[in-house]
Amino acid sequence: MKTYVDQLNQLTFSEMFGSDFLLTWEKTDDEIAAVFAVADALRELRENNISPKVFDSGLGISIFRDNSTRTRFSFVSACNLLGLEVQDFEEGKSQVAHGETARETANMISFMADIVGIRDDMYIGKGNQYMRDFARFVKEGHQAGVLEQRPTLVNLQCDIDHPTQSMADMLHLIHEFGGIENLKGKKIAMSWAYSPSYGKPLSVPQGVIALMTRFGMDVVLAHPKGYEVMSEVEEVAMKNATLSGGSFTKTNSMAEAFKDADIVYPKSWAPFAAMEKRTDLYGAGDGDGIKALEKELLAQNKLHSDWQCTEEMMKSTKNGQALYMHCLPADITGVSCAQGEVEASVFDRYRDQLYKEAGFKPYIIAAMIMLAKVKNPQAFLEKCAAAGATRWQT
Amino acid sequence: MKTYVDQLNQLTFSEMFGSDFLLTWEKTDDEIAAVFAVADALRELRENNISPKVFDSGLGISIFRDNSTRTRFSFVSACNLLGLEVQDFEEGKSQVAHGETARETANMISFMADIVGIRDDMYIGKGNQYMRDFARFVKEGHQAGVLEQRPTLVNLQCDIDHPTQSMADMLHLIHEFGGIENLKGKKIAMSWAYSPSYGKPLSVPQGVIALMTRFGMDVVLAHPKGYEVMSEVEEVAMKNATLSGGSFTKTNSMAEAFKDADIVYPKSWAPFAAMEKRTDLYGAGDGDGIKALEKELLAQNKLHSDWQCTEEMMKSTKNGQALYMHCLPADITGVSCAQGEVEASVFDRYRDQLYKEAGFKPYIIAAMIMLAKVKNPQAFLEKCAAAGATRWQT
Amino acid sequence: MKTYVDQLNQLTFSEMFGSDFLLTWEKTDDEIAAVFAVADALRELRENNISPKVFDSGLGISIFRDNSTRTRFSFVSACNLLGLEVQDFEEGKSQVAHGETARETANMISFMADIVGIRDDMYIGKGNQYMRDFARFVKEGHQAGVLEQRPTLVNLQCDIDHPTQSMADMLHLIHEFGGIENLKGKKIAMSWAYSPSYGKPLSVPQGVIALMTRFGMDVVLAHPKGYEVMSEVEEVAMKNATLSGGSFTKTNSMAEAFKDADIVYPKSWAPFAAMEKRTDLYGAGDGDGIKALEKELLAQNKLHSDWQCTEEMMKSTKNGQALYMHCLPADITGVSCAQGEVEASVFDRYRDQLYKEAGFKPYIIAAMIMLAKVKNPQAFLEKCAAAGATRWQT
Repeated sequence: MKTYVDQLNQLTFSEMFGSDFLLTWEKTDDEIAAVFAVADALRELRENNISPKVFDSGLGISIFRDNSTRTRFSFVSACNLLGLEVQDFEEGKSQVAHGETARETANMISFMADIVGIRDDMYIGKGNQYMRDFARFVKEGHQAGVLEQRPTLVNLQCDIDHPTQSMADMLHLIHEFGGIENLKGKKIAMSWAYSPSYGKPLSVPQGVIALMTRFGMDVVLAHPKGYEVMSEVEEVAMKNATLSGGSFTKTNSMAEAFKDADIVYPKSWAPFAAMEKRTDLYGAGDGDGIKALEKELLAQNKLHSDWQCTEEMMKSTKNGQALYMHCLPADITGVSCAQGEVEASVFDRYRDQLYKEAGFKPYIIAAMIMLAKVKNPQAFLEKCAAAGATRWQT
Repeated sequence: MKTYVDQLNQLTFSEMFGSDFLLTWEKTDDEIAAVFAVADALRELRENNISPKVFDSGLGISIFRDNSTRTRFSFVSACNLLGLEVQDFEEGKSQVAHGETARETANMISFMADIVGIRDDMYIGKGNQYMRDFARFVKEGHQAGVLEQRPTLVNLQCDIDHPTQSMADMLHLIHEFGGIENLKGKKIAMSWAYSPSYGKPLSVPQGVIALMTRFGMDVVLAHPKGYEVMSEVEEVAMKNATLSGGSFTKTNSMAEAFKDADIVYPKSWAPFAAMEKRTDLYGAGDGDGIKALEKELLAQNKLHSDWQCTEEMMKSTKNGQALYMHCLPADITGVSCAQGEVEASVFDRYRDQLYKEAGFKPYIIAAMIMLAKVKNPQAFLEKCAAAGATRWQT
Repeated sequence: MKTYVDQLNQLTFSEMFGSDFLLTWEKTDDEIAAVFAVADALRELRENNISPKVFDSGLGISIFRDNSTRTRFSFVSACNLLGLEVQDFEEGKSQVAHGETARETANMISFMADIVGIRDDMYIGKGNQYMRDFARFVKEGHQAGVLEQRPTLVNLQCDIDHPTQSMADMLHLIHEFGGIENLKGKKIAMSWAYSPSYGKPLSVPQGVIALMTRFGMDVVLAHPKGYEVMSEVEEVAMKNATLSGGSFTKTNSMAEAFKDADIVYPKSWAPFAAMEKRTDLYGAGDGDGIKALEKELLAQNKLHSDWQCTEEMMKSTKNGQALYMHCLPADITGVSCAQGEVEASVFDRYRDQLYKEAGFKPYIIAAMIMLAKVKNPQAFLEKCAAAGATRWQT
């Protein structure tokens, strides 16, 4: 525990208290480092059967506008660990359809909410905006005396970023490579991969290139022509790479990206332009247009079915032993689809590591909550370690 | 805290212990006052970051037979504050369809239930009856040794009353006017208002006229001919007004009701007679009849589209500054519908107050639970205040 | 409490720690006895308003692949009593459809899961297998360092057994007959009964004959020809009967089974062979075949509509006063169907006892959890009793 407390003592992160976590690039390097330190500290406490409850009562509200397994259970786990009960807001059971405004809903579900986690990743230009609106509404509600506490937000995936994913990915890398300092100069290939399904969000590749460029790595973004990600995020990656002494490059060749890579992250996504078009069609209620677009996109994907993470491709990586990463679930050839993002033997070889990668997410979320809710996490963590309150009376 | 404890010491409410809260007019004035005092006391504790847990474990069961946002989250918040975990009973996931009787379901979901909250407001003559049946079933189950504890009920809206709403409304008035004694002689207009939607429950206007007449106010119920509420509730209002030294009058003119009013509560509802008819049609499985009735009711509503809370109407109230109230969500002209109950500029001016009005509901529910579950709430509240157990280790 | 602790001190059950509870016949007599002793001890603590929390935080995950009322609320109650928050895994809201494997799902929802309860009773050869796969996946996940704790499983009903039901049934018998020793030589009739519905699981009769034969009772399984249960389970029952000094016999006559019976358990189920066929049809996606099979089965049931637990039949039992049992909900003639498993007057006479029978389930589940999670339950229970932590500050 002393290690983590010492790390935290050298970082400046006081502005995280009372703040939302929406995009990694809105946070300073120190703030990002604080999340990793608190996440590791919380894991150590739990591994030593010590309960780190911040709250004796209180609610964590989740709003999932898209399906979720990992993130849903990670959010529930994080809230439970810190003492919050989760209440899921299901719009279908609410009176949203009765003409309730977004401002009203935000306040009405937040009376005793300490934290709100939102996934809204389906429509370009909408998800992150919804989170910002929600954050503003509850901030104003708090200022007006409607809400006794200001619930802070955690972005559980939007159209732009997926910070709980990219931060969990990064903490996994830190552990796999034995420390953040060992990542300098490492090559990571964030590559598009073929999938027979349609319309996967862009937030994972965007989140990865924007975050991984902050640690001196050589980040390569690879995709077929036409599968561009948001240019704003590429600019963030570019700027970060310059500042960190790493690099950010793009290529239309998966082979080039994989060559001598230390880490590969092959994953399908939809073209940004197509996602924008879909959002417009959806807004216009053009069902036929959406179907036509879907057909078109599947055909477009098919043209690049050779973008697969095969054993052959893995051989070209550094010593043939690059670390394979994925946010899961992956489209595994012969397992979950006829042909997909990755060959089954590659996936299987890295399965334990992939599951561990996912296993950092509950702690990343818990750390984001703690830094938003506890003014002096060092003191809190030391107090927990000293008190040693048993989580499980085995 | 001393203020609230002193208030409670002067009130007689011992019969609330172990009792359900189904209709406000089944409770004495002292009992109503006790709910307000405990609600305010609980809010003060929470605002001072003190956790008032009554339960170390236990369940609050919710049964929502109609959509809900505010009340759902208020019930969850209240239960969580007092230490109960909420489990929602969704009939669709249960074996109710397999021929389980209401008595059986009531007992089967109540093994470790301390409190049960029910919303059942759709069918005239059914909702309140269902709650009474449920209460009887679990009382008998407790007496027979099936249930170790007797879960008590909170009416989260039925066909007759909406006590958690009207009590929250009243506590809002007490705070807005600086004390219950300042409400004597104030004029409140509970008025029908136009909505393009169909079949809104009567429980809000009924709950309001039955409760607000107990405090010496001049309560005016206004609606177009044909939009009568239940006559039994009007009789309650009449009797209450006489006893409290206030008045209860009816009019078919919104203008008359608004004139010099201190408080206005313009809100749409369906005619009682039509709701009875709908219940019969529903019971007979007459889908065509229901559709025809709906069409008829929408046409009938249209005839009264001038019943709107406009800026012009607000000018006619006391000093043009009556307090505008609503149970939310409101049908706001130009926001949630083309034309509705209230002009957007009126709604916007009162928005913070409306949200605060809603914000009393978690505390009202928590107070109802506490009075049903804690024999000596004064002692409990004083103990909480003295112990000062931190809710949130900020 | 001393009684229960003394009982436990004489039993060997250390292998239950860290183990799943999937089939009663995988557990030794001592282990079965330990579940009863802990269940009774937990009930005594709760009745004395003492909270026996094992966990300060942690999750109980439920997976219901079939509807449930009793078992769902029993699982939630048991988890809540011991300090676990329940999170239901709804496959429809997850990414299972996106090609997630069962192994992956098992690990992804178990990061902070201490216990997992699964109901999967619809398909022969599938449900218990799914549980074993799940258990293996999380065990391997724990060994690989993915999961910090190994969540243990409780079978909430599968295609083979329904251990939480049969154990609750048995604890009910122990209490009704004043001790397990008084059950020796008692005759229990586990009998098929007519139902107008189709495809009820076999796990209740199978669970009952496999468990009740362990206590020296004369267990009679009665059903029309063609309604055979799994032969493997009959073999278990046969072996158990021999070992316990009781008997296990079969008959195709309800009258013969009821004659002089001390206990009767008349309940409908589907023929094993038909359920196997349905599983195959389902696997082949043969919707027409399933409809045809359903029609056939309903017609087959109709041939045996005289298999009803009538007053007349009850008269033939020991002194006309056999204890009537059912897992609920029952098909009650004239109440939940025109003609069903039991006459209304019989059901009504035993209603309180039936509800009490069901009321043992939360404690059985809590005992199963405790024995899997607490190494020395005697010490834990004594500590709870001595500390006397109040559950409800009444």
